[in-house]
Amino acid sequence: MRDFSQNHDWLSINTATIRKQHGAEVPLDRLIDQCAAHGVRAISPWRDQVAAVGLERIDRQLRAHGIGLSGYCRGGFFPAPDAAGLKVALDDNRRAIDEAKTLGAPCVVLVVGGLPGALDGKAHYRDLGRARGEVHDGIAASLEYAREVGMPLAIEPLHPMQAADRACINTLEHALDLCDELDPQKTGMLGVALDIYHVWWDPKLQQQIARAGRERLLAYHVCDWLTPTRDLLNDRGMMGDGVVELRKVRGWVEDAGFAGYSEVEIFSALDWWKRSGEETLATCIERHRSAV
Amino acid sequence: MRDFSQNHDWLSINTATIRKQHGAEVPLDRLIDQCAAHGVRAISPWRDQVAAVGLERIDRQLRAHGIGLSGYCRGGFFPAPDAAGLKVALDDNRRAIDEAKTLGAPCVVLVVGGLPGALDGKAHYRDLGRARGEVHDGIAASLEYAREVGMPLAIEPLHPMQAADRACINTLEHALDLCDELDPQKTGMLGVALDIYHVWWDPKLQQQIARAGRERLLAYHVCDWLTPTRDLLNDRGMMGDGVVELRKVRGWVEDAGFAGYSEVEIFSALDWWKRSGEETLATCIERHRSAV
Repeated sequence: MRDFSQNHDWLSINTATIRKQHGAEVPLDRLIDQCAAHGVRAISPWRDQVAAVGLERIDRQLRAHGIGLSGYCRGGFFPAPDAAGLKVALDDNRRAIDEAKTLGAPCVVLVVGGLPGALDGKAHYRDLGRARGEVHDGIAASLEYAREVGMPLAIEPLHPMQAADRACINTLEHALDLCDELDPQKTGMLGVALDIYHVWWDPKLQQQIARAGRERLLAYHVCDWLTPTRDLLNDRGMMGDGVVELRKVRGWVEDAGFAGYSEVEIFSALDWWKRSGEETLATCIERHRSAV
Repeated sequence: MRDFSQNHDWLSINTATIRKQHGAEVPLDRLIDQCAAHGVRAISPWRDQVAAVGLERIDRQLRAHGIGLSGYCRGGFFPAPDAAGLKVALDDNRRAIDEAKTLGAPCVVLVVGGLPGALDGKAHYRDLGRARGEVHDGIAASLEYAREVGMPLAIEPLHPMQAADRACINTLEHALDLCDELDPQKTGMLGVALDIYHVWWDPKLQQQIARAGRERLLAYHVCDWLTPTRDLLNDRGMMGDGVVELRKVRGWVEDAGFAGYSEVEIFSALDWWKRSGEETLATCIERHRSAV
């Protein structure tokens, strides 16, 4: 297992972690400068943040700082109430893949979507099996294009509490079953983004991480589970502040062959997004060394 | 599949559903009178509610009304920081079993517990594997006594969002693995309480319900998953108001041989607990017929 205690070479910052500072949205170019100032070697930016500043400008800035990507957030949201909606989703995923290619990302993270409309409180249908079928077909179609351009897709199993509105793939086992079905040759073009927040509770986690192996483990995200958790989406904890056995799980991931970045992704409307970016980044670095 | 549309013979009311009315706690004897007035044939009461009125008094009242039990809430919470704490939990479960026996319950529902202390925001340890081991041992010990007195134990897999603080058994598969380990003969003394709120998202739900079979399906709880869900514990929805395919899942449960009560368990600090018990009960009955 790698020693993280001496430096933060393998720390990546998911830019959602610092997208709000003192409660206000901060543009991505400013976030990148802050990361550079803290010696952060990699980030994982969100599409809306990139679009707000401009893809080429962000690309140039990253190159100038020598900052790489640990992933690109995000594709997915495949299910839709009708054929037109399904096509819109596929087109959008194609654009996400193109953007990731421009930025030199190692993978596009897929938050696959749940019941269409549920995110707005009005599900168009309630058939979870249908949504999962549409996810299957959407990934299959996107994978064709991803293979053409050489951009791996990383399915992110989301916590079951987000099954209705954000992603109906909710266990690592389920994600790997889909990978095996769509990419049985393990070409490296389809795998998983393993976010510890979503999967830490799973009794089959160790077993399924071993099953995934290095071919399927395309990204690894960390934060912590707080007790109590006051919000289903935006109350994630800083590593070390919650109950997740971070070091144990990283051991499993590294035993399976993963040797990439440990990406910090903290949605925290109630705490970290109220603080300064400097404080959040400094704490991420300290906890990367002491807790991850 | 049974036809529920003509009556509510197979409706049970978990008394948590109406324990607060207009925001205020209502004693169990009053709740039982309300259920009787609505022609409810079965309830599932909570230990603290029973204790507040008195076990014998509740027993007499239930008999007078001809109201049966669909379960008794609850045993469990086995993990503890030390040997003394583990023993306290075993003693408490023994008392729960005795009370259930007095009331003629078909089973004691087990909310097995998570990381000890996490419910108060201060986990004594973070080793989920240890907690699961203590749950295993706690159920094994309680099962010995349950067998002696003839009171089945029903493990309730809780939603993964409650893994840290309330129950570290979080899938039906995991619960059934434990049943098979501790009661391989399927004596009927160990099974599961299947609450649709906790398991509706599970891609293996249909498969595992079939695996459970009538020997393991000791109780069936319904409510609905709301979008958005505003609280991890107390924002459950009335059947029909959320996204769960209630009828499909009841079909699976009945195909597996379950022919008991459909028990309504709604924790709803934000909605139903603010209304009158009459309105909540009348709505449960209507939805039992139209949505369950």
